[in-house]
Amino acid sequence: MPKINRYIDIDTLEREAKKDYIDRHSPFVHCAAKAKKGEKFAITVRVGNEYSHPDDFDHYIANVSLYNGETLVARADFVAGTLGGQGAKGQLEVTFNIIPTASKLNLAAHSYCTKHGLWESDSVSVDVAE
Amino acid sequence: MPKINRYIDIDTLEREAKKDYIDRHSPFVHCAAKAKKGEKFAITVRVGNEYSHPDDFDHYIANVSLYNGETLVARADFVAGTLGGQGAKGQLEVTFNIIPTASKLNLAAHSYCTKHGLWESDSVSVDVAE
Amino acid sequence: MPKINRYIDIDTLEREAKKDYIDRHSPFVHCAAKAKKGEKFAITVRVGNEYSHPDDFDHYIANVSLYNGETLVARADFVAGTLGGQGAKGQLEVTFNIIPTASKLNLAAHSYCTKHGLWESDSVSVDVAE
Amino acid sequence: MPKINRYIDIDTLEREAKKDYIDRHSPFVHCAAKAKKGEKFAITVRVGNEYSHPDDFDHYIANVSLYNGETLVARADFVAGTLGGQGAKGQLEVTFNIIPTASKLNLAAHSYCTKHGLWESDSVSVDVAE
Repeated sequence: MPKINRYIDIDTLEREAKKDYIDRHSPFVHCAAKAKKGEKFAITVRVGNEYSHPDDFDHYIANVSLYNGETLVARADFVAGTLGGQGAKGQLEVTFNIIPTASKLNLAAHSYCTKHGLWESDSVSVDVAE
Repeated sequence: MPKINRYIDIDTLEREAKKDYIDRHSPFVHCAAKAKKGEKFAITVRVGNEYSHPDDFDHYIANVSLYNGETLVARADFVAGTLGGQGAKGQLEVTFNIIPTASKLNLAAHSYCTKHGLWESDSVSVDVAE
Repeated sequence: MPKINRYIDIDTLEREAKKDYIDRHSPFVHCAAKAKKGEKFAITVRVGNEYSHPDDFDHYIANVSLYNGETLVARADFVAGTLGGQGAKGQLEVTFNIIPTASKLNLAAHSYCTKHGLWESDSVSVDVAE
Repeated sequence: MPKINRYIDIDTLEREAKKDYIDRHSPFVHCAAKAKKGEKFAITVRVGNEYSHPDDFDHYIANVSLYNGETLVARADFVAGTLGGQGAKGQLEVTFNIIPTASKLNLAAHSYCTKHGLWESDSVSVDVAE
């Protein structure tokens, strides 16, 4: 408690409402498959892949956190109204630029919906070359 | 990924180092057993019960989050040096005052250590009388 | 830009609406006048002294930050609904416990209202004895 | 108190150390001059323009906040070690994507250095077309 909801491949689901519910809450980590040690590397976290989430005052995506293994890399907080406001829908999207030092990144993100709690992305593995 | 470490009753553990490791990272929720609707109610989150955590620049408790069920109530971020600084140990402690409206609170906290990741408290149930 | 609104002694103001506006947005730092080096010291930040602020979804106090001189000590984020919810009013209140190491603290707080921006408290000076 | 340091055009400064000090702490807001109502609009906040900041455990840029007028749009928190780690230097950079609804944006950012406090960017004005 609280529950951490985990992304389920929505192609395995039948009900449209369920696909929408899971997709619009789930954070997705987007980045290149390879990074270079000591060079800037962009990691985008977007909430929702095929679907979008409301941006209402009482129901919006309030934050995302990016982890490398067990370690917090960065966290972004948003306020209602950032993605079109009351009645609109959008996909929260933030790009963190890091300069990696380890030889591997194992990235995952959390997102938080003010009505439907915590959600976790699939993991993304990145090779970091010298 | 990342793992959410859950508190284990340290009396069930044998090794002193293990008791210390688990206790000093775990958030504990302290509050009265009953609240009154519409009246101020104090909820303290303390990290560590019998043990204390380092407050070093590269190893400290950076934040705690308080949840009521799936809903985030409040979150506090701290910086290294707040609990005695480099070489010292302490128990992060923050008190959030809320004014409850529902008839029950189901509280749990997360804490985050910059070296040892996310930890979750036991849940605490509070009856809220009219 | 953005403006940092500073607290004005409301006894110097005539209009009731203005007293209310300034008081309910301003953070106030409450703590003992003296601390002891290496011992736990509680610092409370409360937003509003004689007046209370709405806790509506589209209008609430979202966070407070506590500074010691130029240095951030701690920050707390809240969500709408923590202080009685839609239609209610309350005073956000959070207590940070620190273990001071310097011989003096010079505390000040910021608060942020989702409609009326950033506000700054008066400063509070604390002697820290060995 | 705390002081909000404001960016000064470093071309007006003579001392190299002073140019470096001011530039590496100051947030800069980068975005297109025009946005479209209801369409995704990227706003990048980068700390440092010509110079870079240390990423040491006891000295790093810990967060940036983006404001539209008096209103917080988004905030990002980082941990030491994100930009090359101990001994390295880098420019914190985060891109927030918003969907604007008003006809004008008036953007400014704050950044926070764990040693040298709060810094504020120049403002950037954006026209939002229908």
